[in-house]
Amino acid sequence: MAVNLPPPEPKSLHPVPGVELGVAMAGIKKPGRKDLLVLRLAPGAAVAGVFTSNRFCAAPVLLARKHLANPVRALVVNTGNANAGTGKDGFARALSVCDSLAKHLKFKPQQVLPFSTGVIMEPLPVERIVAGLPAAIADLREDNWSGAAEAIMTTDTVPKARSLKVRLSGGEAVVTGIAKGAGMIHPDMATMLGFVATDAKVSPARLKKLVKSVADKSFNCITVDGDTSTNDSFMLIASGIGVEVKSEKDRKKLEQAVHEVSQWLAQAIIRDGEGATKFVTVAVERGRNQAECRKIAYAIAHSPLVKTAFFASDPNLGRILAAVGYAGIKNLDTGRIDLFLDDVLVVKSGGRNPSYVESDALAAMKKPEFMVRVMLNRGKASTTVWTCDFSYDYVKINAEYRT
Amino acid sequence: MAVNLPPPEPKSLHPVPGVELGVAMAGIKKPGRKDLLVLRLAPGAAVAGVFTSNRFCAAPVLLARKHLANPVRALVVNTGNANAGTGKDGFARALSVCDSLAKHLKFKPQQVLPFSTGVIMEPLPVERIVAGLPAAIADLREDNWSGAAEAIMTTDTVPKARSLKVRLSGGEAVVTGIAKGAGMIHPDMATMLGFVATDAKVSPARLKKLVKSVADKSFNCITVDGDTSTNDSFMLIASGIGVEVKSEKDRKKLEQAVHEVSQWLAQAIIRDGEGATKFVTVAVERGRNQAECRKIAYAIAHSPLVKTAFFASDPNLGRILAAVGYAGIKNLDTGRIDLFLDDVLVVKSGGRNPSYVESDALAAMKKPEFMVRVMLNRGKASTTVWTCDFSYDYVKINAEYRT
Repeated sequence: MAVNLPPPEPKSLHPVPGVELGVAMAGIKKPGRKDLLVLRLAPGAAVAGVFTSNRFCAAPVLLARKHLANPVRALVVNTGNANAGTGKDGFARALSVCDSLAKHLKFKPQQVLPFSTGVIMEPLPVERIVAGLPAAIADLREDNWSGAAEAIMTTDTVPKARSLKVRLSGGEAVVTGIAKGAGMIHPDMATMLGFVATDAKVSPARLKKLVKSVADKSFNCITVDGDTSTNDSFMLIASGIGVEVKSEKDRKKLEQAVHEVSQWLAQAIIRDGEGATKFVTVAVERGRNQAECRKIAYAIAHSPLVKTAFFASDPNLGRILAAVGYAGIKNLDTGRIDLFLDDVLVVKSGGRNPSYVESDALAAMKKPEFMVRVMLNRGKASTTVWTCDFSYDYVKINAEYRT
Repeated sequence: MAVNLPPPEPKSLHPVPGVELGVAMAGIKKPGRKDLLVLRLAPGAAVAGVFTSNRFCAAPVLLARKHLANPVRALVVNTGNANAGTGKDGFARALSVCDSLAKHLKFKPQQVLPFSTGVIMEPLPVERIVAGLPAAIADLREDNWSGAAEAIMTTDTVPKARSLKVRLSGGEAVVTGIAKGAGMIHPDMATMLGFVATDAKVSPARLKKLVKSVADKSFNCITVDGDTSTNDSFMLIASGIGVEVKSEKDRKKLEQAVHEVSQWLAQAIIRDGEGATKFVTVAVERGRNQAECRKIAYAIAHSPLVKTAFFASDPNLGRILAAVGYAGIKNLDTGRIDLFLDDVLVVKSGGRNPSYVESDALAAMKKPEFMVRVMLNRGKASTTVWTCDFSYDYVKINAEYRT
């Protein structure tokens, strides 16, 4: 059950002029569920993306990265099979899917970006996907973000979509996005798949810069289990048929909206993390640099011991100190460290705060959302990551995933 | 339930002349269980140790490291409280325990090494420990390794002890050791606590070298959950009242015995890992260097997704490829990689082996012990680590640890 994450209200998802979405049931892993998504973009749309850093990155990731060099006109996404760890054959299969979609839409195959998510190391059922394309194409329309969010789910329990309107000097722009992911979630890229689109006119160069900076503050700040996926992809689309970005102020407003939508989606992945019952913000502050803050934040956010304590609402907070201690910061002076749970000062100057009362921490941890804040007190850098707890259901979901 | 780890047969544990052990029930965390251990060493015994690299290392670790500079005559170990994350007050409390034991035994406090294991960040109940010392001292005897193994357990379900005799040119030497640990287990040091003793004469300098090399091939090669403890300590004792090490051949034989006992104990920790149902050997071979082999081995051994698949006996082996891919080896050529599960060739040249049949992998994974072997095929380095699976019981044990 996701933490404070109701399904999106379809009406709240504003269509993005110049971006059509079509969904089909192709029976990729099992029949009777939406598992195929096609996006068709207006001519001249700008597309930028960031991809997983996993060396075993999937065939569609290799291909999408390559095709991004061309004027992109369509994206095709399947769930149920990741087409990763599949070698050259996997690459050929991903290309077949692009070929087939390109023929239908009268584009070139290299104008199509493929995306896959699901089980690793099993052959992509190209025939089923190709057979499903006509239905997805027949379904293409601009007000279909809700269906699209459903069609990319794997172990997600809630579809994830978010939409904002932002008023620029020349008129209103729309920013709408979807994402999926619940397990194998760890930054660098982070989400399995995220797609955010605007109708505003944004140059390809600007979009390329923006996608990186947005990813770093959204999808690259989350972790469910520390497993970096083979298929992570986050794509930013500017259809360019909407309002123009005329000023620096316009640019900031639009980028803020893109940032908000993306961060919301990234957090939604954590709220719906496999087996999650808690949504936890981990902030590490007053560090010497970003790198040490991130190391410590992720040591906490990845520790199975810390995460099972979150699950139990057990303020066994020494486990957090232990994680801080093994984060690999060699010259860390533990005597300076303070630790807060929400507003409760648990550790002061590296030891238990004498006036700390465990019932205060317990009260904070019993809430579905709380914050762990570590003050290193040795500099000005800070970082924030979002994570969830580790429950029986995480084990259950992942022990039974393929069955 | 531990994996293929019966409790030690008390008779199989050879006394080490010059090392006496005494056990008591001090009621440190709860009454009615052995939780205090004292070791008294013969005059002239050599002691060497390696300790946790956790920056939040516990007060007793700081103190033991300091006291090691002196001729050590006694060790005192309590379970039920780690005395970590306790700041200066924790240090003072550890020193009080040394003081008290030294008075009883007529040694100096700085000749006593203290060790603690248990909950982090709670004040050490010095009074209870001090009150328990006379009973532990009254119990001191050489044939008490079995009781000692019990007295250091926390979430362990089986006491861990191992003993060997080795024939040197001048006569027989004994090597006997105990260890504890089941959670918060990750190398660098690795076990919470390990003590191995021999009666052979080994110089302090040689012992210091040996403890490091042995740790690197035993306790530093295991992981349950990737959490490096605040209290890890591995101590090697040579009472020196036994046989002399006369030749290089003698030295090798003795060191081999120490190595075997230590590796057995390290593996015992994994067999008794929290919630463990599988004992898994992860070997990474033909790498360019040790560092990259270890990175990959631990990426596999720490992945919650891989470990839950082990638990389910589910050959969802793409998860292993994903872990190899995100291990942080930047120039890794995935096209060279082969993956074996026991003798089953699952992945060949970076993709699914065409003749791989899943039922073969399934048969291997259903066994309580199996091996994952990754061939990088780009060098001559290799490494082996031992780990266990990730089960419902891991979550249960750690969600309920303090209650």
